[in-house]
Amino acid sequence: MKRFYPITGTILLFLLFAIFSGLSFGGSAPLSGDSEMCLECHVYLHPGIVEDWEQSSHANTTPAQALVKSELARLISVNQVPEEFAGYAVGCAECHTMNPDQHSDSFDHLDYQVHAVVTPADCSQCHPVEVDQYKDNLMSHAYGNLQENSLYLSLADSINGIDTFEEIEITHSPPDPDTNADSCLYCHGTKLRMEGMKTVSTDYGEMIFPVLSGWPNQGVGRINPDGTRGSCSSCHTRHRFDIEMARKPATCSECHKGPDVPAYGVYNVSKHGNIYSSNGEEWDFKAVPWTVGKDFTAPTCAACHASLLINADGDVVSPRTHQMNDRLYLRIFGLIYAHVHPRTPDTTVIKNKAGLPLPTELTGEPVTEYLIDKPEQEKRLNAMQSVCLSCHSRGWVDGHFDRFENTVKTTNEMTLTATRILISAWDQGLAEGPADNDGIFNEAIEKKWVEQWLFYANSTRFASAMAGADYGAFANGRWYMSKNIQDMIDWMKIRMDIKNQPSNRR
Amino acid sequence: MKRFYPITGTILLFLLFAIFSGLSFGGSAPLSGDSEMCLECHVYLHPGIVEDWEQSSHANTTPAQALVKSELARLISVNQVPEEFAGYAVGCAECHTMNPDQHSDSFDHLDYQVHAVVTPADCSQCHPVEVDQYKDNLMSHAYGNLQENSLYLSLADSINGIDTFEEIEITHSPPDPDTNADSCLYCHGTKLRMEGMKTVSTDYGEMIFPVLSGWPNQGVGRINPDGTRGSCSSCHTRHRFDIEMARKPATCSECHKGPDVPAYGVYNVSKHGNIYSSNGEEWDFKAVPWTVGKDFTAPTCAACHASLLINADGDVVSPRTHQMNDRLYLRIFGLIYAHVHPRTPDTTVIKNKAGLPLPTELTGEPVTEYLIDKPEQEKRLNAMQSVCLSCHSRGWVDGHFDRFENTVKTTNEMTLTATRILISAWDQGLAEGPADNDGIFNEAIEKKWVEQWLFYANSTRFASAMAGADYGAFANGRWYMSKNIQDMIDWMKIRMDIKNQPSNRR
Amino acid sequence: MKRFYPITGTILLFLLFAIFSGLSFGGSAPLSGDSEMCLECHVYLHPGIVEDWEQSSHANTTPAQALVKSELARLISVNQVPEEFAGYAVGCAECHTMNPDQHSDSFDHLDYQVHAVVTPADCSQCHPVEVDQYKDNLMSHAYGNLQENSLYLSLADSINGIDTFEEIEITHSPPDPDTNADSCLYCHGTKLRMEGMKTVSTDYGEMIFPVLSGWPNQGVGRINPDGTRGSCSSCHTRHRFDIEMARKPATCSECHKGPDVPAYGVYNVSKHGNIYSSNGEEWDFKAVPWTVGKDFTAPTCAACHASLLINADGDVVSPRTHQMNDRLYLRIFGLIYAHVHPRTPDTTVIKNKAGLPLPTELTGEPVTEYLIDKPEQEKRLNAMQSVCLSCHSRGWVDGHFDRFENTVKTTNEMTLTATRILISAWDQGLAEGPADNDGIFNEAIEKKWVEQWLFYANSTRFASAMAGADYGAFANGRWYMSKNIQDMIDWMKIRMDIKNQPSNRR
Repeated sequence: MKRFYPITGTILLFLLFAIFSGLSFGGSAPLSGDSEMCLECHVYLHPGIVEDWEQSSHANTTPAQALVKSELARLISVNQVPEEFAGYAVGCAECHTMNPDQHSDSFDHLDYQVHAVVTPADCSQCHPVEVDQYKDNLMSHAYGNLQENSLYLSLADSINGIDTFEEIEITHSPPDPDTNADSCLYCHGTKLRMEGMKTVSTDYGEMIFPVLSGWPNQGVGRINPDGTRGSCSSCHTRHRFDIEMARKPATCSECHKGPDVPAYGVYNVSKHGNIYSSNGEEWDFKAVPWTVGKDFTAPTCAACHASLLINADGDVVSPRTHQMNDRLYLRIFGLIYAHVHPRTPDTTVIKNKAGLPLPTELTGEPVTEYLIDKPEQEKRLNAMQSVCLSCHSRGWVDGHFDRFENTVKTTNEMTLTATRILISAWDQGLAEGPADNDGIFNEAIEKKWVEQWLFYANSTRFASAMAGADYGAFANGRWYMSKNIQDMIDWMKIRMDIKNQPSNRR
Repeated sequence: MKRFYPITGTILLFLLFAIFSGLSFGGSAPLSGDSEMCLECHVYLHPGIVEDWEQSSHANTTPAQALVKSELARLISVNQVPEEFAGYAVGCAECHTMNPDQHSDSFDHLDYQVHAVVTPADCSQCHPVEVDQYKDNLMSHAYGNLQENSLYLSLADSINGIDTFEEIEITHSPPDPDTNADSCLYCHGTKLRMEGMKTVSTDYGEMIFPVLSGWPNQGVGRINPDGTRGSCSSCHTRHRFDIEMARKPATCSECHKGPDVPAYGVYNVSKHGNIYSSNGEEWDFKAVPWTVGKDFTAPTCAACHASLLINADGDVVSPRTHQMNDRLYLRIFGLIYAHVHPRTPDTTVIKNKAGLPLPTELTGEPVTEYLIDKPEQEKRLNAMQSVCLSCHSRGWVDGHFDRFENTVKTTNEMTLTATRILISAWDQGLAEGPADNDGIFNEAIEKKWVEQWLFYANSTRFASAMAGADYGAFANGRWYMSKNIQDMIDWMKIRMDIKNQPSNRR
Repeated sequence: MKRFYPITGTILLFLLFAIFSGLSFGGSAPLSGDSEMCLECHVYLHPGIVEDWEQSSHANTTPAQALVKSELARLISVNQVPEEFAGYAVGCAECHTMNPDQHSDSFDHLDYQVHAVVTPADCSQCHPVEVDQYKDNLMSHAYGNLQENSLYLSLADSINGIDTFEEIEITHSPPDPDTNADSCLYCHGTKLRMEGMKTVSTDYGEMIFPVLSGWPNQGVGRINPDGTRGSCSSCHTRHRFDIEMARKPATCSECHKGPDVPAYGVYNVSKHGNIYSSNGEEWDFKAVPWTVGKDFTAPTCAACHASLLINADGDVVSPRTHQMNDRLYLRIFGLIYAHVHPRTPDTTVIKNKAGLPLPTELTGEPVTEYLIDKPEQEKRLNAMQSVCLSCHSRGWVDGHFDRFENTVKTTNEMTLTATRILISAWDQGLAEGPADNDGIFNEAIEKKWVEQWLFYANSTRFASAMAGADYGAFANGRWYMSKNIQDMIDWMKIRMDIKNQPSNRR
């Protein structure tokens, strides 16, 4: 493809000005010539992200410098880096021009082959261990686990589609891609697809850029133009990409805040969250490894779920993980019933006895063959409890987990009750269910049932897992579980009354 | 009016004590004699607000000093200040005794003509540009746009009034003024009215003070005793009145937090909010002008909607505005349907074809003649996008706004569906509507309809505009829009069933 | 009881290592030998809490040093301390081995008589005034006031129990103890009971520890193994136990966040909360006494409800209180109707005319004999207003409290309307009430009634008390009160329609 650059003169002029005025960019690590070229324009075009990057480790530490740190202090997970990268800051060009052949969105930009979407494959150049671990993280499959599971897709469609009213009936149309990208896929990740090029008028004249459908997106399971899954910037926000932000709980709130997964709200009202809110500003969020007590005195989300922690003695309390569920034995949200974690991050392979793509039956029995076994559960439980035990006695921790497991049991029971009411409504013809070849998420009574597990049981379990008090009582907790049961039976009774009136009996 | 001061002796004694004990007040700018007089008592009476003021620019910069700053760095928007003010701190007396003739609440206080309520007219002595811009801000008309719009007033009355139950019927009484002041008008602003004087026993003896109805209030559209609209302290909180607080998002949360306008919640879970929560403590909230990247690396509410921003090159990214809607082309909350912004901040002039005081028909078509035209829309969109482009590429920004406009369209469609169900309920006699000479906001099914647009469509649009993820999905977003449609049709169907039973057919 | 210690060798070895490696623990105050013994292991076992403690006043000030501070600056409320304690830090042993005879959970731990649960009786060794005040705090009776009030217990049981569905009927089973501990009693406090001892394998070999039911818990009304009530660490979080955390609002959010008691949410959106969020990081949360204006410029929860405040002149604005309700004349949450505060913190003594354990009749009239009298109400109101007047004029404060009292009146009226609808439903046989020997909180319509007062009226009153805007309007405020009335009457009307159809008339 041949390109015409009407702007070369302008840019040249600008570069000359930059050189003569002695401007300098970047952090303390030396810049590659390529990245310097990028910055000469982009520091003016996008000062916010450039400044963010200038404060990053990427701008202030070369890979060679990163490699000489002690094993526990090291943020790079290779043993050596190609010579051409080793001595320079990890700048614009290093990431945005890497492996151009792999990126279907790569395009010619002033003679560089540039791609906008930096992917886990790009990051794995220096961070392969983390990228590999993340492949086993359920999050990396968040796109497919929703879009390629017929049941969940029907839930998503019932939420995101358009209802129209005509002749006293509702007609449902499936959602458009923009709505999906704005709703579920904001967190689950979109599928990015190269749609062609377009000419854009810029401060430096006309330029040609790729058009990507599904863009922008930073969802955890994003399908990238190079076929990889996920976006490291979900948690390591661009362009500082630092460990500090990933360790602070606000970062997790982007996707873990709503009634379906109220982790952030629960954390905030927990003792751990209280301590963070009160004393967190004194903590050292940059220290690697992260020393319990010295660097922080109460866990954030990352401390329990991901971080490399050591104790005052220098012993490893928990190794760093980007799989995250290797510290989780029970899966307490997202599904109709809480259950032990699935074996594989790709959950589309799961089928229950009734043929539904669910890890439990509709009545709650786990589909054991797809779930981790007892030894793996124990291993994960121990991994999590080793964090707890850094501040709490064995008796405290046991008491906490006993309650938590009891809550998993009772919330599942309250979901089963709601399910049985729904099945009875289907059986009595008060609502249309599977036997009528109708969806199970689309009618008023079905939506009440969904809220029983997706909001109230989830919230109660998070409150129990993280000691979030009212989230298990009045704030979408047990109050709502019990009220919802009464609302469902109330709904059923009046419809039965009407149906059973003499004049209606058939 | 003659006054008797039984307290003069006490005060004299006190002043003598103060003088001899060498007390000094205020910030680094010299105090006028009048303000010094005020402080001699009030530093003991109200230490909280005095200390707040002592940390303000008002206490530490004289108008003369403020005037010599460079144009972009200047916070004062006059070219000169009357000589008698120029060399002193802006202290108590400067504001609270200004233009006494204009203030119906001005009263004789130890021989000073003092008014409690400082108004935009007072502030315009030094900040006329901001005060003028604010007159074009919808917020400045928030009182009248609610209280003088018969339709909205009927909504407010249905919320704030008292319902009583007698003989299986509800009787509704209109709200009392205290309830209105405590509810809608807390943010919209009250009408302050001078009701007379009353004698109060104070630490310095008996004194006479005005009685103001509607007081206290700091609502954005407050009707002041001098006839002006608004309260600068809504955002520039008394008595520091600083730019720092107005730039921090918590300030906006006072009125933009609830389900009707969840901007603050949405911001908190957005990437922008995550970055602010994680790194904001390192930012410079006092710098004027505000340099993108250098002073802050992610926008707060003010950055997008009000602040004077410059880039690393010193070029203006966006000029300061107190009109705010000059960066907004679409109005996404407060009304039944989202629509392009009205031409004038006084929306009471608007009438749709059906004669209702609404900028759209009840079925969503915009009443174009009252709304800004295409070129003005473009201008405002560009003003906003120039902020976005400081960190994001054109492709990112276009993708974002495409989704946003799609969300405006689809949320309006889901509101239309709810409206059609409601109209059908009215037509079938299942609820009482306009044809029955009844309100449209007061029955159970009507309230469901209100929630469709006031809570769920609004929330979804805010989530889309500001990338707030779950606020467009499960947190009052699309889940609730779709559930509400099912609840409405479910409500209608059972009532139709009962009505159509043989024994009920007429 | 004789114990066998297989671990002594390991520990000895460890201690030798510690001594030779010159490790030192603790803050700047000298450690007692006993506490040093504790730390030699526990600094490695529980580094998080040890570090927290090392930053505490307990670790850095001996009681003797605490005693020489000026009266207002003193945090200790005895005049002298037993000599054996006076010169040492308040360390592990000082609290965890105090009064072993009183603690049923005391056990032999390496020849020390240790108890895990430190109680107010232990704290009262140095802080007797605070412990005594707390005994008059409603919170100290939070366990009994819920568990020993048959009516509230039936509410709690209806929320926390398990519902099962069989043959189109719901069967309710009472909750298990773990669920109660995880739900209401998380904040109210559990009853801790010694259940026996168990052998645990630890890093130092096998050891024997007590098993406590109800553990862990830090609820405000916890029943301790020594019979005392409450847990100081509810607010003074372990193991820093500092005044700073208790003064920061996040600490209160643990129990005052949900829809039933939305104080924290209301505070956050109030002007006070806005100022705290924007400027709080500059405040001095450690200063004792706490000087209004100098140390902080807007109140936190503690400032209004508990703290010792002085003004710029050094005069006491409000003395420290751990009773808290000595600054509260109205009780605005938790009960069906707001009412003046009860005389005694033990509310189980209260009976209304109908024989119910309530401080009002079911129709709202107060049961005056159990409530504080007018002079006490005035005294409490004045105590609170003296805080307000530190920043606000008398006219401002009066206006605020007029509105608040009006809100208490109108929210009670809206609750009465809901109550009357419910009573009518009972009377018509549409629901089962007291006359049917059925609970009053367990059916769908009854739960709507509960939300009227427990969520919506409460929220509206908190918004009014603390100027929380939307919490009195759309965020669980007046919108929901009025909507709920319409939902209740709508529910009743359709059931009446069905019942009154010709074919159903009996």
